[in-house]
Amino acid sequence: MDYYILTTDNLQQFLYTIPEIRDYFGQADLKIEEIGDGNVNYVFIAKSAENPEKALIIKQAVPYLRCAGEDYALSRERMTFEIRALQSYARNVPEYAPKIYYADETMSVVVMQYLNNHIIMRKGLIDQNTYPLFSEHIADFLAKTLFYTSSLYLSSTEKRHLMREFNDNTELCKLTEDFVFTFAYMDHETNEVPEAYSAEAKALFVQMDFRKNLLDLKYSFMTHTDALLHGDLHTGSIMINEKETYVIDPEFAFFGPFGFDIGALIANLINAWISHLHVSDNPAYREWILQTIKEVYEKFESKFLALWNAQNESALITPGFIDDATLAAYQKAFMHRIFQESIGFAGCKIARRVFGIAGVAEIRGIEDPQKRKAATMHALRLGTDLIRHYHSFDNIDQLLRAVEESS
Amino acid sequence: MDYYILTTDNLQQFLYTIPEIRDYFGQADLKIEEIGDGNVNYVFIAKSAENPEKALIIKQAVPYLRCAGEDYALSRERMTFEIRALQSYARNVPEYAPKIYYADETMSVVVMQYLNNHIIMRKGLIDQNTYPLFSEHIADFLAKTLFYTSSLYLSSTEKRHLMREFNDNTELCKLTEDFVFTFAYMDHETNEVPEAYSAEAKALFVQMDFRKNLLDLKYSFMTHTDALLHGDLHTGSIMINEKETYVIDPEFAFFGPFGFDIGALIANLINAWISHLHVSDNPAYREWILQTIKEVYEKFESKFLALWNAQNESALITPGFIDDATLAAYQKAFMHRIFQESIGFAGCKIARRVFGIAGVAEIRGIEDPQKRKAATMHALRLGTDLIRHYHSFDNIDQLLRAVEESS
Repeated sequence: MDYYILTTDNLQQFLYTIPEIRDYFGQADLKIEEIGDGNVNYVFIAKSAENPEKALIIKQAVPYLRCAGEDYALSRERMTFEIRALQSYARNVPEYAPKIYYADETMSVVVMQYLNNHIIMRKGLIDQNTYPLFSEHIADFLAKTLFYTSSLYLSSTEKRHLMREFNDNTELCKLTEDFVFTFAYMDHETNEVPEAYSAEAKALFVQMDFRKNLLDLKYSFMTHTDALLHGDLHTGSIMINEKETYVIDPEFAFFGPFGFDIGALIANLINAWISHLHVSDNPAYREWILQTIKEVYEKFESKFLALWNAQNESALITPGFIDDATLAAYQKAFMHRIFQESIGFAGCKIARRVFGIAGVAEIRGIEDPQKRKAATMHALRLGTDLIRHYHSFDNIDQLLRAVEESS
Repeated sequence: MDYYILTTDNLQQFLYTIPEIRDYFGQADLKIEEIGDGNVNYVFIAKSAENPEKALIIKQAVPYLRCAGEDYALSRERMTFEIRALQSYARNVPEYAPKIYYADETMSVVVMQYLNNHIIMRKGLIDQNTYPLFSEHIADFLAKTLFYTSSLYLSSTEKRHLMREFNDNTELCKLTEDFVFTFAYMDHETNEVPEAYSAEAKALFVQMDFRKNLLDLKYSFMTHTDALLHGDLHTGSIMINEKETYVIDPEFAFFGPFGFDIGALIANLINAWISHLHVSDNPAYREWILQTIKEVYEKFESKFLALWNAQNESALITPGFIDDATLAAYQKAFMHRIFQESIGFAGCKIARRVFGIAGVAEIRGIEDPQKRKAATMHALRLGTDLIRHYHSFDNIDQLLRAVEESS
């Protein structure tokens, strides 16, 4: 089928060309609304007119930036990589990703489960909700998505075939290279620097002592193909409630370094902690955030190692090549590198939100200007410190202390 | 055109369907001989019957291993990657690669310059020839092929597009992973262990102290996409005379770590040094080899840095992001990592030749059994030592001392 743009007018007809969707709705008449996912794509919800509990989400990419109009070209191939990543999740972590009912790369469209009992985690954290199962779920998600797409699990040929599916996600990789690793640290037209922060921004833009490490992290992002990453795993890419955790929007998916998704997640938890330090009088909630960071990392590490130890053969390991003690020493050093890089990437992900495009609501959205500025500067200090010193972190408790002592 | 196998009978007809080849030979009748390149492909030489100085090489891959017959399947796609690598050389280092007259991926064929005044460098080294321009040429080749295909030169998008062309060279990457990094160090059916060496081989196969580093190097080979490599840059892949140096046979080409080609070359020069220590009474020649290793590395490094310093913008570096002093510090650490990894890869490339498949002529071909064994064990000791200690090398002079002291 050739590509065409879906609208509330033609969507029912499109959906009912698909047997799986006809089966799902039993051919009931559909109530269709455009809901938007913010800026980039068109998102619709289709509900059965007979039984509104039956509902699906339809997401289509258009060859421009939805919120800006047709003059702002952005290749719709981004949906191709989102579809492929969602299909990878369906294989490896079906319990943490929306169920896919239909996907078509030519139409740049995906039809998926409607998560009606879940909210965006960023909002949940702003509202001081706790999620007792979150660390378990997301650690499981991280361990499985990273391990099952790595050279520690796949054969050499399987890995290269999977890499081929994501190699061409060039536009979105470039966005990360520019906005996470580069422009946010220099005088650049895309930055968002309020007048009241211009002295601090100027000081940052000439500060050089963390840039050698920042380039190392950027270079690792660009050239290390450890595993298939989500690529944008912040708390806005997580739909959550007390019982379930879903990861959405993997359009940035590509083969990159293990630590990048982990770092993104830790960064966004730290941003929530910083926000509440400045706006809420709730030490117990901050403590919950810190404990969550600790649990996420420790559970990720033990789950990842358990998967590795259950795997006898892979692109990297040939049975009989290495004895258990030597493998254990290798694993220890390997996990240590993942840990340190995660801290480094967390630093980038915190610092880039300060003056770069697309700040986070929990900090830029603080109403009181003084508190907002204090939280902003706090994030900048801690983010750049993590970039500066990531090689000196040996365990997650040291990170928690660094966060606490940064206040 | 559909694929078919070229023979001495149908080759002239094939060649004269190609305008460039008709022009080259002026439609003269051709004298065609099959010369073979050893084992893998069919190689022909076509000479003008009128003027035998006019000659071209025709190389075609068949979907099996030529020397073993049709039962030994080997995908002919290897020629696709050789063609693409040769085209990359034509863009970046035309002076060090045979001129391509015609290439067709569907036919798995390439027609190229006949190097009639050059010999395989491995043979030249066995014959104790010196090549005064070699270090200059190969350092230039390494600096340019590595730099111009890296994120230090290309844009992010250009790099990913070039990576796509080589991602699928899975079969030959797997050969290297198996034969350079794995099987040669363990009890494996593909090894070639003479009866008189079985005690030493058994001792090696249970020796674990270098395997953590070996896995690091293998992992780097599999997951670091620094630059487009030749992938098999030993002295048998170099055609040479006193004035010119040509690199041939890049069928293993893929995106891998900077140090791998450099290490392969150093390893083969060290193997020549070891061989002559045991079979020749010519200290001056051994000294020439050591000086050549030093010059190759030092010239590579200064040429690579000169290219980098002339490049204002790349996937990694955005103008205005970093000041000169900080960039210089970053480059110093970056080049140091390349150096150490080169030493580590050199160690693998030496050690894998000892009991693994495909030994090198300058050691396995030593006639005197005692000298052969002494040279073999010397190579094993030095190769594994370089793997063990590559992180402790700070400069090329330390490597030369390690080679000399290994005797």
